[in-house]
Amino acid sequence: MVDIIHKVGIKAPISEVYAAVATVEGIAGWWTRDTTGESRLGGNVDVRFLTPAGTELGSMSFDLAELQPDKEVRWRIKSGPAEWVGTDVTFTLSQDGDMTVVIFGHRNWREAVEFMAHCSMKWATFLLSLRQLVETGTGKPAPDDLKIDNWN
Amino acid sequence: MVDIIHKVGIKAPISEVYAAVATVEGIAGWWTRDTTGESRLGGNVDVRFLTPAGTELGSMSFDLAELQPDKEVRWRIKSGPAEWVGTDVTFTLSQDGDMTVVIFGHRNWREAVEFMAHCSMKWATFLLSLRQLVETGTGKPAPDDLKIDNWN
Repeated sequence: MVDIIHKVGIKAPISEVYAAVATVEGIAGWWTRDTTGESRLGGNVDVRFLTPAGTELGSMSFDLAELQPDKEVRWRIKSGPAEWVGTDVTFTLSQDGDMTVVIFGHRNWREAVEFMAHCSMKWATFLLSLRQLVETGTGKPAPDDLKIDNWN
Repeated sequence: MVDIIHKVGIKAPISEVYAAVATVEGIAGWWTRDTTGESRLGGNVDVRFLTPAGTELGSMSFDLAELQPDKEVRWRIKSGPAEWVGTDVTFTLSQDGDMTVVIFGHRNWREAVEFMAHCSMKWATFLLSLRQLVETGTGKPAPDDLKIDNWN
C-alpha cells in the first residue's frame, strides 16, 4: 500500500478549515462544484468532475467515515476510478500560531501507478484551492481547476 | 522505502525540458537561483535556499547520477537534510502530442514523515515553476518560490 501525503498551511481559524473539508458545501468550494450529499458522520457524498463545456471527466462517491471536529476528517472512497476504490482521503488539522496546518493523505493505493502521480499533483493544486477558499472566500474547484498534464 | 511521485505536462519540446532538469543553468531557473556545479554525468551540484533577505534556509548537494538525453535524469542526494541523504530525485520524460510529460520522483525516503509531506507539496509547486520556466522563459525559483506552510 502506498500513500500520497502533502502539507499545507492556511492562515485561518481551524474551524473554518474543518468546515471546508467536512461538509458538502465546503468541498464544493475547492474540489469540485458538483458535490452533493449529506454532511454528517457516515453520510455519503457524490462528486462529479466536468469540463467547462459540461462533459463528465469522472465521478466518485465516498462516505464521511471520520469527523472529529477541528482534528481529523476521513473520506472512505466507495466508487470511482478502480485505483481509488477502498482508498482513504484524510485531513489531519493542527494549529501553529495564526496558521492551521493540514496534513493531507490519500492513502492505501495498491500501486504507485502513473495515475497516482497525476493525482498527487492534482491534489497539491486542489490544496492550494482549499487555502485560497478559506483565506479569501473563493477557491478554484473543477471545472475552474488548474490543468496539470495531458490527462486533466 | 517510500516515494513522492508527481506528473506534470509541459507544452514545449522535450529537449528544452531535459535541459531544465539536467543542467545547472536550467535548475537555477525553477528550483533555486543559488545553484552551482558541473553539468555533466557524475558532476556535483550544490543548491542553497535563501530567504529574500539572504538568510540560508537549507542547502543540498547532489550528483548528476544519470543523464539520458530527452529520457531520464537522476540526481543522487549526497548531503543536506538527514532525511534526504541517499534519496534520488528522478525525471522521466516522454512526448504526447505537443506536450512533454514529466514523471517526477523523489524516491527512497526511509519514512513518510511530516517533512516528506512538506517536500511533496513544495515539489508540486516547483514543478509548476519548471513548467512556467520552459513555457514562458521565467520560473519561480527560490527565493521567489511559493510559501506553502509554517516551515517554508
